[in-house]
Parts: sequence; C-alpha cells; structure tokens
Amino acid sequence: MERKWMKNIRKVVPYVPGEQPKGTDLIKLNTNENPYEPSPNVKRYLECDHKYRLYPDPTADVLVSQLATTYGLSKDQIFVGVGSDDVLAMAFMTFFQSEKPILFPDITYSFYDVWADLFRIPYEKQKVDEEFRLVKEDYYKENGGIIFPNPNAPTGILEPLEFIEDILKHNQESIVIVDEAYIDFGGQSALSLLKKYENLLVVQTFSKSRSLAGIRIGFAMGNPVLIKALNDVKYSFNSYTMNEASLIIGSEALKDQEYFEKTCNLIIETREEFVAEMKQLGFSMCPSKANFVFATHKEYDATEIFEAAKKEKIYFRHFNGERVKDYLRITIGTKEQMKQVISFFKNYMNKS
Amino acid sequence: MERKWMKNIRKVVPYVPGEQPKGTDLIKLNTNENPYEPSPNVKRYLECDHKYRLYPDPTADVLVSQLATTYGLSKDQIFVGVGSDDVLAMAFMTFFQSEKPILFPDITYSFYDVWADLFRIPYEKQKVDEEFRLVKEDYYKENGGIIFPNPNAPTGILEPLEFIEDILKHNQESIVIVDEAYIDFGGQSALSLLKKYENLLVVQTFSKSRSLAGIRIGFAMGNPVLIKALNDVKYSFNSYTMNEASLIIGSEALKDQEYFEKTCNLIIETREEFVAEMKQLGFSMCPSKANFVFATHKEYDATEIFEAAKKEKIYFRHFNGERVKDYLRITIGTKEQMKQVISFFKNYMNKS
Repeated sequence: MERKWMKNIRKVVPYVPGEQPKGTDLIKLNTNENPYEPSPNVKRYLECDHKYRLYPDPTADVLVSQLATTYGLSKDQIFVGVGSDDVLAMAFMTFFQSEKPILFPDITYSFYDVWADLFRIPYEKQKVDEEFRLVKEDYYKENGGIIFPNPNAPTGILEPLEFIEDILKHNQESIVIVDEAYIDFGGQSALSLLKKYENLLVVQTFSKSRSLAGIRIGFAMGNPVLIKALNDVKYSFNSYTMNEASLIIGSEALKDQEYFEKTCNLIIETREEFVAEMKQLGFSMCPSKANFVFATHKEYDATEIFEAAKKEKIYFRHFNGERVKDYLRITIGTKEQMKQVISFFKNYMNKS
Repeated sequence: MERKWMKNIRKVVPYVPGEQPKGTDLIKLNTNENPYEPSPNVKRYLECDHKYRLYPDPTADVLVSQLATTYGLSKDQIFVGVGSDDVLAMAFMTFFQSEKPILFPDITYSFYDVWADLFRIPYEKQKVDEEFRLVKEDYYKENGGIIFPNPNAPTGILEPLEFIEDILKHNQESIVIVDEAYIDFGGQSALSLLKKYENLLVVQTFSKSRSLAGIRIGFAMGNPVLIKALNDVKYSFNSYTMNEASLIIGSEALKDQEYFEKTCNLIIETREEFVAEMKQLGFSMCPSKANFVFATHKEYDATEIFEAAKKEKIYFRHFNGERVKDYLRITIGTKEQMKQVISFFKNYMNKS
C-alpha cells in the first residue's frame, strides 16, 4: 500500500556496482582492482597508535599536501573525496547547474547518467564510433558541461593530449571534467593543460594504480576557483568525509613512488603479454591503456564465457548494453592469474 | 572577473565545522568527542592483514549485521554512512522531496539549514521556548518532513519518549527523523517506536559514545521501505562509501558492549560532577543528557571566556547566534580534564 509519506521519497534508479564475491580461492578480475598489495609503507603506519576518537582533519591536509608535492601543484588546486565516485558526484552537484544538457559518451562509465538523474541534470549522450572511439566534434556544440574518462571505460581506449585540448579549445564556457581513473597504466594526464584551461578538472583515484580500492580515496585537480566550489559543496554535505585511516594510508602510499611505478609497469607488461595471447586465441580487443581489456570473440558468446568462467571461480565483468553485450571486460591481474585465464579459455574452446 | 563557466557552479553557504587544533598538549572540548580511546578490540583488528587493494563490501554487511544484532533489528532496517552527517545528508536528499516546508527547531544542529539549502528544500524553523525547549505543538502543522535532535544540540536537553510519540501521532503523513547523536549519555532511544511508526527514522553515530569520530560511521534505523530508499540514493551517489577500515573497526567496537557502557557511564558521572561544580561558580546550564553542557554566566562574557581559555589551550565551542551568543558549549572530557577546566574558571574569575 502506498502511504502518504512515501510520496516525499526521491525516486532513483541506482548504479549497480560489480559483484563482490566473498572468499579467497578465486580469481577476481571484474572490478579493475590492482592485484598487488599497497606499498609496505601503508601497513607500517596503520599499526601506529592513531587518535581515532578525534574527528579527522576536515581539510585532509596531510593527504592534500602530499598530493600537491607528488603532482607539483599547490594545495588549493586539490580536492579529495571518498573514492573518485564521491569526487565525481560532488563535481556533478557543484558544476552542472546549467539548464543546457551536459555531454558524455554513450559507451562510458555507467555512473554518469545515474548522477545526472539523481541531481536532475539534463544530459545528452554522444555516440562513440564503430571502433568505440570518442568523436571530438560531437563535443563542439552548446552544452552545460562535459565529462568523459580517459582512457575510456569499459573500452580502455586512450585519447592523446591534443584530443583533450581540442575539446577544451571549443568549450571555454563550460566546465570540462576528464576522469583519469586509469591514466597511470600508459596514458598521458591532462594535468599539464591545467595551466592553460581554468575550466578543466582532472579526476584521479587511488583505487587502481595505487592498490587502495578498499580505502576509498579519489581526488580532483583544477584551478582554485573550481576547488573552492567543490569544497563549499563538500562542507555543505559532510565536513568530515575522509576518515583518519584513509588520510594516513593515502599519504603514505603516495610517498612510495618507486613501488607505484614498479607495480604499474608490471601491470602494463602483463597486459601486453595477455593481449598477445588473447589475439592468438582469436579474441579482438580495443587497444587498451588501462588495467583491463575489453574483449570479444566471433565464435563464442560473451555471456556464456562469463558464466563458464564464474563456475571456475574466475570473475569477469559483462555489460548488457546493445553494443557491448558481446564483450567481456577483464581486469589485468598478476601474471600467474592471467596464465590461468588463458588456460581457462583454451580449455573452454576445446570443450565447446 | 566572472567567467561564463562560473555561472554553472552551485552557490552554497557551507557549514563551518568546529576548529580542529593540532598538537597534543591541549584540552579539546569543542567538538563533543569522547575522551576515552575506542575499545581495545579495534586496535587488535586493525593490525591484521586486510585486503585494502580490493573494493570494500558495498552492502557493508559485517557492520550492518553487527548493528542488527546489537539493536535487535533485521539487516534491512539499517543503513550506514560516513558519519551521521553523511546519513543525514542522504536522508535530506531522499526523504524531503515535498514542496511543503520541512520543520526543525531554530536552535539546533546548525547543519540542518545547510543541507536544506544545498538540496533546495523549503524549511521553516520553529522557535524553542525561553528555556530552549522544543514546543511540540509547533510540529503539528502541515509539513514536508520533520527533523530534530534528541537530546537537542547545542543545549543537551532531552525530551522523553512520550514527546517524540506525540509528534509522530500528529505526523503520520510525513517522515520524522530523530537525530540521536547524543542518546547514549542518559537518554531513551526512540528505537522502541519503530514498530509502531513506519515513518520514523532514528539516526545515531559512532563519533560520540563509541569514541570513533575519526573513523566516520553513522547509521539510520527505520522500516525497510525507508532503508531501501536511502540505499537507492546512496547507490546513486557512491556505491562504496564505507572503507574497509571503518567496516572492521565499527563492527569490532560494537562487540565490546561492556567497554561501551563503562565509558558512557564515566562520562555521565563526570558530567554530573562538572555541572555541580559549575553551578557553584555561578554558571547556569541547560539540563544536559549529552556529552556536553551549554553554560552561561551572568557576570562573564562568553566570547571573552572562550578566548581566554584558548590561550590556555582549552578549547570550547562558541556560536554567534542571537540567543546563544552568551553560552559556551563544553564537551565532557576526562575527570582530570574537567578539573583543569574548573581550575581555569576559578583562576579566570579571580583575575577578571
């Protein structure tokens, strides 16, 4: 029965996160996590005696300062949040206040339209081309803001810096957000364009390249006007979003640049080896510069492979959308895990 | 210079959190933290080897299950968030979708009007009486929702269960939120009314009675329709709000009921002793059932005391509002800390 008080509830269609299966004896390649542990620094600092009884620093200074040092920016150019999802949600709420539609690709991170719906922001999806590439000219029209990931998800396709700059050149009246969740696996960040374009916001995360999905840290980099606006909204929502553990863990992880580079390179190397082997098995893949590949096979049905892999406790991600339903998104794990994936495919193809 | 892209930025007046001074040689009684460390369980579990590289469980099951056990509810009656601020922000966004104004007291938690402004929710403040008490009849008119803290902040005044029930009886068409951040210091929770009123949401936090302000955990209890609506909005905002550390720490803290009761009782005892001594010094205080007192003195100016205390590294909270500017909100610390506060006052009064 519909009660009167139910009328006042916001109706939304929520984002559905990837499956998080429990247990340890499985190969989890469905949500683009990093197969390597975070920097050993992290664990050492967690064991120290922290003042969890006190509120954390609402300015998250220890983390913001370390990010500023790491990326060569000033502190007022950096905003932090509870994963890049929190940062992006705040950015949608803060920057997309126009009546005009915001623009993003039709095949992309599936949270964008969820946020737009949640905050009642009009939007227009722009079709990617036959090879799943963004068409930059589609973003040259009037709009209330622009957002796209680079590399794009779930394709892994990277656009060069000139592509980003072309979009910026044509959109000096809008705020343009480049979502760089996967940039550290072979891409070039748009960070260098911040000096030239004050309407650019670059968003990154600790969940992929820094092996800290479980600790929830994302950050945005942009000019101080944008960062202040984000902080004003954040302080209107929840002053203390970052818990003490995340502040310590995040800043310690950043200090270990060597470990970061080593593990990113391992994943890049593993990806290239995996892609070569997948091609030999007859898979086609988008050219990926992310920590996952988006793969399809002419002879085998993606849904069936997905289910068969799951029975072997190997988890991929499968999306049901019209143009992507024949594809599997496979996170790059350790070399050993990817060998097991290749063995699974060989076995599957012989059996079917 | 106002650029065109600036027009699309949401304008807000953010909440100003209490000062978080750094350093250890100070008496920090300005943000109602708990002076005792969290349960020793917490530290033991933090030292274990957790999988921070993986996404946390988006359903926060380990924490939700333990809350269900602790409060005798089912899991679908519980929602968790990044502190009760996150829970309340989500609740404002989820439940206050009416065109009619929501109602809350004029002297209360200063975040309510900030959230209402952020989400463009109309509101009407209801005046508390001369003794700062809520007037229940003011909440018997048409409205788009109701929220108030019990005990109220910054007064510490507790209303009995019958008071809450009277408001619920008169508001069966609205969602009524009771914000019980301070309920464990001598109040009776409205939890027992959940069976009878399906439009009631009770919100609590780990930041006060469970000594975990730094780890950011809040929770809401209500009927499964309300909880599902909150989760739908949360999943539309950020699927993974609770980091792995907070899930483990929160569930471990809950298991130590004995420690929880012991430290709550210590604070209650300290509060009563402190109130008695303050009265002897000529202070008037609202009758507090919280972990703070709201105190005023006929002969001494609150702002001047506030500043003088700060010079001695004793931090109180002072609000500039019309009716509260003569008051200081003083968090109850350890017995030793409160003795130092009393000494400070004696000294201050002799000197002035």
